[in-house]
Amino acid sequence: MAQNGADILARVLARNGVDTCFANPGTTEMHLVTAFTHDLGITCHLCLFEGVATGAADGYARMARKPAATLLHLGPGLANGIANLHNARKAASPVINIVGEHAIDHIAHDAPLTADIEGLARPVSKTVTTIRETGRIDADVTDMLQEIQTGPTGVGTLIVPNDIAWDTAQQSNLPPASAPAPTPPDAEAIAAAAKALQEPGALLLLGSPHITRRAIELGNAIAAKTGASLRAEAATARTSRGGGLPEMARIPFQIDAALEALADTRHAILAGARAPVAFFAYPERPSALLPEGCAVTHLSPPEGDLEATLAALADHLDAKPVAMSAPDMPPLPRGAITPEALGAAVANALPEAAIVVDESVTNGPFLQPTCAASPAHDWLNNRGGSIGYSMPVAVGAAAACPDRPVLAVVGDGSASYTPQALWTMARAGMNVTVVILSNRRYRILATEMSRIGAGEPDERSDPLMSLDNPPIDWVAQARAYGVPGASVTDAQDLHKELTRAFTEPGPHLIEARM
Amino acid sequence: MAQNGADILARVLARNGVDTCFANPGTTEMHLVTAFTHDLGITCHLCLFEGVATGAADGYARMARKPAATLLHLGPGLANGIANLHNARKAASPVINIVGEHAIDHIAHDAPLTADIEGLARPVSKTVTTIRETGRIDADVTDMLQEIQTGPTGVGTLIVPNDIAWDTAQQSNLPPASAPAPTPPDAEAIAAAAKALQEPGALLLLGSPHITRRAIELGNAIAAKTGASLRAEAATARTSRGGGLPEMARIPFQIDAALEALADTRHAILAGARAPVAFFAYPERPSALLPEGCAVTHLSPPEGDLEATLAALADHLDAKPVAMSAPDMPPLPRGAITPEALGAAVANALPEAAIVVDESVTNGPFLQPTCAASPAHDWLNNRGGSIGYSMPVAVGAAAACPDRPVLAVVGDGSASYTPQALWTMARAGMNVTVVILSNRRYRILATEMSRIGAGEPDERSDPLMSLDNPPIDWVAQARAYGVPGASVTDAQDLHKELTRAFTEPGPHLIEARM
Repeated sequence: MAQNGADILARVLARNGVDTCFANPGTTEMHLVTAFTHDLGITCHLCLFEGVATGAADGYARMARKPAATLLHLGPGLANGIANLHNARKAASPVINIVGEHAIDHIAHDAPLTADIEGLARPVSKTVTTIRETGRIDADVTDMLQEIQTGPTGVGTLIVPNDIAWDTAQQSNLPPASAPAPTPPDAEAIAAAAKALQEPGALLLLGSPHITRRAIELGNAIAAKTGASLRAEAATARTSRGGGLPEMARIPFQIDAALEALADTRHAILAGARAPVAFFAYPERPSALLPEGCAVTHLSPPEGDLEATLAALADHLDAKPVAMSAPDMPPLPRGAITPEALGAAVANALPEAAIVVDESVTNGPFLQPTCAASPAHDWLNNRGGSIGYSMPVAVGAAAACPDRPVLAVVGDGSASYTPQALWTMARAGMNVTVVILSNRRYRILATEMSRIGAGEPDERSDPLMSLDNPPIDWVAQARAYGVPGASVTDAQDLHKELTRAFTEPGPHLIEARM
Repeated sequence: MAQNGADILARVLARNGVDTCFANPGTTEMHLVTAFTHDLGITCHLCLFEGVATGAADGYARMARKPAATLLHLGPGLANGIANLHNARKAASPVINIVGEHAIDHIAHDAPLTADIEGLARPVSKTVTTIRETGRIDADVTDMLQEIQTGPTGVGTLIVPNDIAWDTAQQSNLPPASAPAPTPPDAEAIAAAAKALQEPGALLLLGSPHITRRAIELGNAIAAKTGASLRAEAATARTSRGGGLPEMARIPFQIDAALEALADTRHAILAGARAPVAFFAYPERPSALLPEGCAVTHLSPPEGDLEATLAALADHLDAKPVAMSAPDMPPLPRGAITPEALGAAVANALPEAAIVVDESVTNGPFLQPTCAASPAHDWLNNRGGSIGYSMPVAVGAAAACPDRPVLAVVGDGSASYTPQALWTMARAGMNVTVVILSNRRYRILATEMSRIGAGEPDERSDPLMSLDNPPIDWVAQARAYGVPGASVTDAQDLHKELTRAFTEPGPHLIEARM
């Protein structure tokens, strides 16, 4: 049987180890659907909304450490996926973002769905390629897979005109993209960092791409040896923690807390981290969070090998492993679900090897710290700040790690951007537990309004921040998409429902009324 | 009290008659929220997802014939609104699309939410402006309102850095944007069209921006006088119909049907219409739908005054009003909800002055034609083809015309992109009835797959087209967002539920199992 371009493209993906696709296809992607679902071992997950597909590809990349493909329909389909591609870009997640396009000759006719796909893709992509000849498919795809996994990893948008997919094509056989060598530790940077860490007011700041358990052990050893403080960035793409490790301080989200936390820093040593900046600008507050005059040493870039760098640094300093202990597990909480009680309920219930996707917003300050007392687990933060992130990322994490329990903790405002993720969880029977923090407000806005000097929330501005009229019925939302749901108002019940959800296979939703 | 930039911006909008805003704000829009909700008579509708806000602005513009504002949060917030801005652009709907941006000095710090907002906006905007000085607010907003309502109307994206909103600013008092004069009929084009219409194989094709009742009366008079055929474009932004008017043929969506319908056309006279093109490209099919050698006369551009042009043309031709009659109302349907029965149920229930937003996709072929028998109503089609269009557009139509009943008819696949629109309908008690055509498939894909030569759907590709595992529970979805819902499998029950929904105030959702 003659092969078409879609067949070749599927083969090149498979040859390069891309075996998972999150899809919301249309007419222009039909040849790709046929090719992807036939005989190549590519697992395709249908998503009801493109933001689910792109967020899933982000979560998949963080856990599988390789790219998944998306499959999106023309410019508008891409557009619906951009917000979560933005998050993937900021997390440096490699994603091969495949977007169908009209047949090349059709584009100039300006049909209803014609749009500037490359223009839409550029702001969130490390690289954008429209395949213009069937003979280029193999090279274009292989080059893209190489590029998005090398140096600063990121999103590659591959635009496939329909005639490229349907035309007969010759198979070529380029070698697969080679596994990129991680940027090795830089001896000069290590010597400089070692010196800086021994100065007063030194801070070792850890960041991307993955703060492993060993990186935390090494960071603690280096801090103990040098007297430097140790912190992680405000949001990290992936941190392995719990299981006896101490909690690592992060840079606070709130501007004044962040400035205070860093006030005594005189030398920042950046290991996979960027110099910290304020999430938003505020009148009379700086954008750069380090104090004026603070020196900065770049130990390793975000795309570097964090663990190897810290190992070389520890070696240079002769820093030995130190005894570490986890915080105590808090008692089982009772009564109202306060932020403290939320942390305690989740920490007590979290099973070994869990993956936590954190979009807890204003109700989250105790969540991550308290779970340091839980068994070993991975924690994923949102580095891009675009909300509607956690349920899609949970879908991708579950696809990458089907045997691990996944927990998404998400504010009710945030959960309202991409609730369609629940359907894909149900369809694939994914072991994802979603906790909706239901305070029926965009509470962060009420806080931010006065913080940013826009006045106090009042009865006139309230309708642009309140979610209580009508209240969202989250159990009905779960049922709509085939997910069993429960609503709890008591922390003890929250713990009970979490334990049940982690025990039963398949997805669960728990609305925690706060 | 000193005014800030946000206050000035709100005043300029109000002075120019912009009195409605569809919003999903964040921290960077807090000053705008305060200004918009205080004392200026701007009605703000909170949306849970930005695609609802932008679609609502499109629907509002079609019915109110003036722009509403959106209020979106930074690049990712804009991104979530792009798909429905694409539809607004293709419908030439004037929209003032307001997007918050970080304070100007903060942008270079590349905070988590920093993105290329202008780059994202350009593909869907007629004009994009970032306000760079408080002294420019009045001129920038007034200029934009002028531009998006003049000539080819469209989307203006106004980017407001946070410091522009919070800085103290002086009020200026430019005159409001002047009401644009519609492009007058062109005497030469009218003479040419009059001649062409009398040739054999002549087709008078009606298009944008609004096919009014009088335009239909004039079109029929001209067709009767000249012997030309009369059609409308495949999708029109707004057509006023029913109430005794005959049904007007449209260009079919399906490629072979479209080619056949136009096969005998030897001269196309375009009145507010573009030369028709295929929705998608298909192997061995042309993109341009008019037969080769077909002559084209441009009577009036899409931004022209369609009614005045047709009146001048009728006058030139001495075409007198003709007797017209509506098709007969079909009997009340019974039994399974087939596409025919759907058309009959809706046609029988549709009240006077209804606004129908049509996203009926594969189940729709009888819907619009059958409703020609209903009382006078307006019909809105999707000119951009990006799905998830109808429920948001219905929100905007209801905001523009609170006293008119609004009906959105939408496939279950399409409805899954922007279900959050239901919440805004419930919040504002809008008189919108949503009919979900639930066949639990992307049925159009199964049809298109073989039509486009990508093979026959089989059990391997089916999981990328089927929506039955799990089935979406639409009544639960409605309940989640505070909308009463019902599910029907019988056409008689559909008619009964429609009648009830049109009688009771507030939104209703009816799942029609097909």
